[in-house]
Amino acid sequence: MLKKYLLSPGPTPVPEEVMLEMAKPMIHHRTPQFSKIFSNVREKLKPLFGTKEDVLILAGSGTAAMEASIVNTMSPGDKILVVNAGKFGKRWIDIAQSYGVLVESIELAWGRSVTAAQIEEKLISHPEIKGVFVQASETSTTVYHPVKEIAEIVKLRENTIFVVDGITSVGVYETKMDEWGIDILVTGSQKAFMLPPGLAFIALSEKAWKFVETSKNPRFYLDLKKERKAQNNDTTAYTPAVSLVIGLSKVLELMEKEGLKSIYNRHQVCADATREAAKALGFRLLAQDIPSNAATGIIMPEDFDGQKFVKSMRDDSGITFAGGQDHMKGKIVRISHLGYHDFMDTIIAVSAFEMGVKKAGLDIELGAGVAAAEKIIIDHI
Amino acid sequence: MLKKYLLSPGPTPVPEEVMLEMAKPMIHHRTPQFSKIFSNVREKLKPLFGTKEDVLILAGSGTAAMEASIVNTMSPGDKILVVNAGKFGKRWIDIAQSYGVLVESIELAWGRSVTAAQIEEKLISHPEIKGVFVQASETSTTVYHPVKEIAEIVKLRENTIFVVDGITSVGVYETKMDEWGIDILVTGSQKAFMLPPGLAFIALSEKAWKFVETSKNPRFYLDLKKERKAQNNDTTAYTPAVSLVIGLSKVLELMEKEGLKSIYNRHQVCADATREAAKALGFRLLAQDIPSNAATGIIMPEDFDGQKFVKSMRDDSGITFAGGQDHMKGKIVRISHLGYHDFMDTIIAVSAFEMGVKKAGLDIELGAGVAAAEKIIIDHI
Repeated sequence: MLKKYLLSPGPTPVPEEVMLEMAKPMIHHRTPQFSKIFSNVREKLKPLFGTKEDVLILAGSGTAAMEASIVNTMSPGDKILVVNAGKFGKRWIDIAQSYGVLVESIELAWGRSVTAAQIEEKLISHPEIKGVFVQASETSTTVYHPVKEIAEIVKLRENTIFVVDGITSVGVYETKMDEWGIDILVTGSQKAFMLPPGLAFIALSEKAWKFVETSKNPRFYLDLKKERKAQNNDTTAYTPAVSLVIGLSKVLELMEKEGLKSIYNRHQVCADATREAAKALGFRLLAQDIPSNAATGIIMPEDFDGQKFVKSMRDDSGITFAGGQDHMKGKIVRISHLGYHDFMDTIIAVSAFEMGVKKAGLDIELGAGVAAAEKIIIDHI
Repeated sequence: MLKKYLLSPGPTPVPEEVMLEMAKPMIHHRTPQFSKIFSNVREKLKPLFGTKEDVLILAGSGTAAMEASIVNTMSPGDKILVVNAGKFGKRWIDIAQSYGVLVESIELAWGRSVTAAQIEEKLISHPEIKGVFVQASETSTTVYHPVKEIAEIVKLRENTIFVVDGITSVGVYETKMDEWGIDILVTGSQKAFMLPPGLAFIALSEKAWKFVETSKNPRFYLDLKKERKAQNNDTTAYTPAVSLVIGLSKVLELMEKEGLKSIYNRHQVCADATREAAKALGFRLLAQDIPSNAATGIIMPEDFDGQKFVKSMRDDSGITFAGGQDHMKGKIVRISHLGYHDFMDTIIAVSAFEMGVKKAGLDIELGAGVAAAEKIIIDHI
């Protein structure tokens, strides 16, 4: 028997009852039956976004929604500010450049969080900046950027919108899009939403919708104005990913039952426990300033082959951690706290990690990580 | 008890064993396990496309692949020829215009098929045309366009590519992309492929890949060159729709077992039987020239409310037919033959149709449709 444990920051495990819901007979998408489900899930997404605005559902991965946020609001020659502090920060730049949008960037070492002051400085020296693009949680570095504080800076500027990639923050952290002043918030299905990948969600503020009116970049499949019109009629511009929307309906029912406060707290506790465990075992965390509650990145010793470790844990022990991406390949191990993941999953993760690194030759004390994790978790079970 | 029968041309029913395959625990997409499945399905898609070229899998609906075929090959100011003979023909025009691509069109009444001669005439009078865009099967009109014959015309022109929307033809008809000379062929998951919507497939000829090199339209999520590079390394540029790819793997296993010849024949027989049934009941078909084997469109009498009929069949009897789209709303009923649909499903469709129209007040002979269908089907069971 080789039980499998999916502990990577997306895709995350899907609850059995959600999988079975998606396994029900297919229904047609142009029916009152589907429209009812669709309108219901769009409504239930709003508290997770902290918005009264329309939340749109797209058939595509999170990158599609990131692209949508640029092509619907910016024109060739416009300038945006990007926080480039990881793989997904870099993606904003790549998308913008594909569409002739100019990029001013704040380059940070992987592991650092941006500060609101750094953003403000750039906005003062480059008043032409039309959009500030940031990850709330940068999955590649397991870092959180202070989006609430940044929003306070950006919302004072009439001609600048604040765009947040919430792919691993919505459903992990309380997010108050309207109150804080986030203008565009995007997320995907395969993280805190406990679904397979294939859906993306996006919401725009009134201010952002005004940018849509003047944006000259071409778009068709990702045309948000057309989608809004269709979705506010309880349908979609193009064929939706029906089974995933039905899964979403079940997921949102589960999330409502658990309660958002409890969900955010669960992520906090699992993250805290994992971080304390790593430190108790003598490791350093990649996140220097504000570690993300979506996943914990652990720096491996210089002579340790992190890639081989992740591979062997997966193939020999059924434990899927994530390694590092791009230049961090082999140098870190990332452990997820996302979605369908409870306190005992964190114990599994920590225990598997400490046994794994011990077997791989590191001199650590077996049980020290688990003990540290238990000290955090015990107050919450 | 209200058993449900999904008889609309997409989404189509998903086989139980495929739904259960997709309900298995989620796996990570950056693993040898997923790569093996992914490379295997890409290989197995080739015979369905009739190609040795790379078939790419996108997370999105068929429209995303249609858009990809334009933005990756055409530049603003280029001119294309579109056969506008239905809702999806019109979509080529809308996409092209969104990207500044000029459109010459052949406008046909809904129900008509284009001829290769009409295409040739346009290409002679407009030698600047860089692409010919057509539906093989136009789902809105249940018409087939003679793509093999059109390919023979287009392939003689070095500076023109032939782009085929095969969304309801791949898996329905034998398609020989390479031999016939189709340069781009696109399809989706929720038709003959018996899957939920959310995946699109696209293949390009060597000639089309050359167009990609010079095309100046912007693209990121739908950048096919980047996708090809990733997919030929058994991965994807962005997160794939994992559960649907796993479903595809099961579907392709089932299709291989049934045999492509048998699949194409099954669609032919179900379509023939439905058409003969409609005629025996005194109805006319919408398709004037070449009816499609994907679905049959039946013209309803002038004073008959087709929309009400489709609604009542669905809500009162559990039978989902499709009505007409756009200006054909209420005027036709469309019955699907696509995908997980066998001879007895056709009997159900015909019987439900004849009982339904009788109850709705039409003077037809009960059983006449089924008898006509049986006369076709009996030689194949």
